Amino acid sequence: MTLDELDPVIHAQSRLRVMAVLAALDDGDRLTFTRLQQLLGMTAGNLSTHLRKLEDAQYVVVEKTFAGRSPVTHVALSGRGRRAFGTYTESLEALLRGKP
Amino acid sequence: MTLDELDPVIHAQSRLRVMAVLAALDDGDRLTFTRLQQLLGMTAGNLSTHLRKLEDAQYVVVEKTFAGRSPVTHVALSGRGRRAFGTYTESLEALLRGKP
Repeated sequence: MTLDELDPVIHAQSRLRVMAVLAALDDGDRLTFTRLQQLLGMTAGNLSTHLRKLEDAQYVVVEKTFAGRSPVTHVALSGRGRRAFGTYTESLEALLRGKP
Repeated sequence: MTLDELDPVIHAQSRLRVMAVLAALDDGDRLTFTRLQQLLGMTAGNLSTHLRKLEDAQYVVVEKTFAGRSPVTHVALSGRGRRAFGTYTESLEALLRGKP
């Protein structure tokens, strides 16, 4: 019997929160790093670390720009990230119904 | 802002599978260790390790008995385990809807 492993890049609790918040946005929408940090109650360092892992998996796109002279970082789910999150939640829901 | 942390005893993928399978049983029902192992496709050693963690948290009850002369181990969710799993799935569902 083969079990669908839940994607460990997504399953880690902090990254799951990041992915879920981004997945709840309309397609193409993004959040600033600061806003994401507020929503999740995470330190900048901790959020950066998890975003880097998600970026390495190409699940999120992180863009650094400027608003006037202030640097602003935007974070969005990629198409690949949205699909991976969909697969993850489907597997998770099956698992939670006791179908390993 | 305070976030409800997902219970780390339950969130670890292998233990989540164990809890979900046991939670899908009717109240009071139990599985043999062997059957659980088959359902989850886990090695005996790996399953034992995770069951010990769940036992330490008093989420499962592990009972060793005999069927004739053969030792049989039964595993069931405790009342506490059922409540913890309910809290976990509620928090998880809120989180998946993008409500951190």
